Amino acid sequence: MKTQKVILNSDEIPRQWYNIQADIKMNPPLGPDGNPVTPDALAPVFPMNLIEQEVSDQRWIDIPEAVLDVLSMWRPTPLVRATRLEEVLDTPAKIYFKNESVSPPGSHKPNTAVAQAYYNKEFGIKKITTETGAGQWGSALSFACSQFGLECKVYMVRISFDQKPYRKSMMEAWGGKCIPSPSMATKTGAEILKNDPDTPGSLGIAISEAIEAAVTDPSGETRYSLGSVLNHVLLHQTIIGLEAKKQMEKIGEYPEIVIGCAGGGSNFAGLAFPFASDKMNGRDVEILPVEPSACPTLTRAPFVYDHGDTAKFTPLMPMHSLGHAFVPAPIHAGGLRYHGMAPLVSQLAVEGIIDPRSVSQLKSYEAGVTLARTEGIIPAPETTNALACVIEEALKAKAEGKEKVILFNWSGHGLVDLGAYEKYFAGELKDYSLSEEDQAKSESVFKDFPKPEILSSK
Amino acid sequence: MKTQKVILNSDEIPRQWYNIQADIKMNPPLGPDGNPVTPDALAPVFPMNLIEQEVSDQRWIDIPEAVLDVLSMWRPTPLVRATRLEEVLDTPAKIYFKNESVSPPGSHKPNTAVAQAYYNKEFGIKKITTETGAGQWGSALSFACSQFGLECKVYMVRISFDQKPYRKSMMEAWGGKCIPSPSMATKTGAEILKNDPDTPGSLGIAISEAIEAAVTDPSGETRYSLGSVLNHVLLHQTIIGLEAKKQMEKIGEYPEIVIGCAGGGSNFAGLAFPFASDKMNGRDVEILPVEPSACPTLTRAPFVYDHGDTAKFTPLMPMHSLGHAFVPAPIHAGGLRYHGMAPLVSQLAVEGIIDPRSVSQLKSYEAGVTLARTEGIIPAPETTNALACVIEEALKAKAEGKEKVILFNWSGHGLVDLGAYEKYFAGELKDYSLSEEDQAKSESVFKDFPKPEILSSK
Repeated sequence: MKTQKVILNSDEIPRQWYNIQADIKMNPPLGPDGNPVTPDALAPVFPMNLIEQEVSDQRWIDIPEAVLDVLSMWRPTPLVRATRLEEVLDTPAKIYFKNESVSPPGSHKPNTAVAQAYYNKEFGIKKITTETGAGQWGSALSFACSQFGLECKVYMVRISFDQKPYRKSMMEAWGGKCIPSPSMATKTGAEILKNDPDTPGSLGIAISEAIEAAVTDPSGETRYSLGSVLNHVLLHQTIIGLEAKKQMEKIGEYPEIVIGCAGGGSNFAGLAFPFASDKMNGRDVEILPVEPSACPTLTRAPFVYDHGDTAKFTPLMPMHSLGHAFVPAPIHAGGLRYHGMAPLVSQLAVEGIIDPRSVSQLKSYEAGVTLARTEGIIPAPETTNALACVIEEALKAKAEGKEKVILFNWSGHGLVDLGAYEKYFAGELKDYSLSEEDQAKSESVFKDFPKPEILSSK
Repeated sequence: MKTQKVILNSDEIPRQWYNIQADIKMNPPLGPDGNPVTPDALAPVFPMNLIEQEVSDQRWIDIPEAVLDVLSMWRPTPLVRATRLEEVLDTPAKIYFKNESVSPPGSHKPNTAVAQAYYNKEFGIKKITTETGAGQWGSALSFACSQFGLECKVYMVRISFDQKPYRKSMMEAWGGKCIPSPSMATKTGAEILKNDPDTPGSLGIAISEAIEAAVTDPSGETRYSLGSVLNHVLLHQTIIGLEAKKQMEKIGEYPEIVIGCAGGGSNFAGLAFPFASDKMNGRDVEILPVEPSACPTLTRAPFVYDHGDTAKFTPLMPMHSLGHAFVPAPIHAGGLRYHGMAPLVSQLAVEGIIDPRSVSQLKSYEAGVTLARTEGIIPAPETTNALACVIEEALKAKAEGKEKVILFNWSGHGLVDLGAYEKYFAGELKDYSLSEEDQAKSESVFKDFPKPEILSSK
């Protein structure tokens, strides 16, 4: 049999998340006054139970039963050996993937959406606002809110809203409300529309609208939610890597190379952090976050203090950043078009625990098509970046004649993003590269900000 | 825990299909001369190994290892108890569903697509042609052909081709070729376009083009494939019901009601036939095929001999039919817009072994949204018809105060058909009903055909 899957039983689902904050030293986020941000300062934006997770240094955090219950709709997810890909590449490498595309919204995003909806509900919140670019996150949060009876309002970047009407319908099917951003529903939005009625919008604007809508709700029953970057978001994703480790153990394997695509960093972190922990304890494993060459934060941008959003609402965060005003080229992996990188992932890169890679758009779609025709699942545009790296490493193993064990995260399927494949087949997709000049210009925004320390966790 | 799934191990997958032809008497299909069709007459259209299955009366047929191998990518599929739906309906009924949406193309269709691709390959065929309406079948066959290295050419009804560009991209991602029908690639298509360049096309035309393309290939290496209706197609789907029975047994349950939506009849048959077999052996179980009220073959049309396609290329088949020239109203459950019903399903209806139902389009989408917000999966338009019946039966059980066990087939997800939900939420969907006058007119086409016998299998 070519098909080799490792399936865990429902009772083998991990019952705790792994909090890597217990194991690495971090620069604190800084407020407008230049001092570390206090939990209280975040209280209008997030519920306190999530803020506590954001700053926790407890290594293991219990997953609430109600969260496990919803995750169990599709978890544990399968670990699959990509034997058909191995055959086509004729490689001695043994390639495994964690299939996160099997969730109802089709990606890893609900792992944290469900947890965040639960904690908001527990804290007495009635409504959650968020932004979405490509639409994966907005869909996942709408799904999660439907499970906990919360209202969900999603500000979707207008150009995506217009190009991807299916995403709006997905959110609506789960009871979410999806609004093109900028909108007249917020001051920020109204002001932008006054000056530029035809603006395509941006993730930065959408974040500003979602935060404004949350903090200005007079009932005090609304909070904001983010789908990546933050510590608690990455924490919730570690269930991926913890499951994968159990599954690899069952078949007596341990990966020599761990690969995930990286935009804000959450699907990569979800798979990689439990292995990064082993590495910090002396285990030999290469860990490769893969980003698009059009938005090369880890591979080209400096480690600095910068804002998480264009409008500078967020605290200064220690991260690899191309500058908060950076507008990435219009690649189709919308989930990877982010100017910064999660502070936790950035810190691992600074310490050399992970080894970042970048790939071009055409290379990634080529890999995506190869995977669709071998392993059967049409990958999300984001996932294809990881796939290009997997193929590269598998061919390297072949050249070296080594039976390497590769593990990667199949973060989502591309069934609601098929427009990008259409363009790929029509020869209309192109590669983008960031010129050094443009990069320098976009990075000028943080030149007067404080600099993070180069910390070492060892 | 609300989430209750019954998962089978890979080695518990059924190794034989159940062939209901062994247990019921059937009128034979008739050729142009009015005599039963011989296998040889079908040889230019289908490979002989599939023709043998089409006419076999062997009760159990081994599933080839290579077919099991590909099916194992997503099979066995989960049996899920719909506890969240039960809670919302406040019903004493215990509702279970078989989740066929987890396949890479997102429906039950690959169960037979994979088998058909395998048998064609075994027979030395290099290329398969088919038609597709809504796109589920064309996607599934493209996927299956990619697994066996076969070429796949799909004639897609032009209006769907234009409305659903994602379906074409899906097929292309798997290496299939998707052509809007009518096309200039066949005589049939060219002639139709000459007379009516702006025709939206029809399933009947697309079938004619696909058959023509297969039988006129001078290399003799092309065959045609159909995604429903025929005996061998329904046979391949019985893996659904056989798995479900095993899963129900594991938890000590047996359904009192079995429900599936029915267009050509394949997903319904797949779940229902193994239970129909029990019923013929004295077991008490209600079996309900559910069709849209806009295309009411089992519930309103007579049992007759009629052609399977508009152009009358196919033999006369004994079935419930609204007439081969019937054009169903433009409901969004494209997979259920078929003028006839599988002969095997029709025979069970004639004998009273199954008890057909019909539901309106708006009722079905209402049910679809309820299920999306409880069980999490956004259902395919076709599936929503089954869901409306499930809710009706669950509420009936509540009114009667009975703890009935209901089992239904979740035949697919709706992520590539979200346009229909968009219209539903915008209030643009409507109900259609077929007037008796229109029905009588459309049924006039078979008034001079031979009549099938009313056979009894008991």
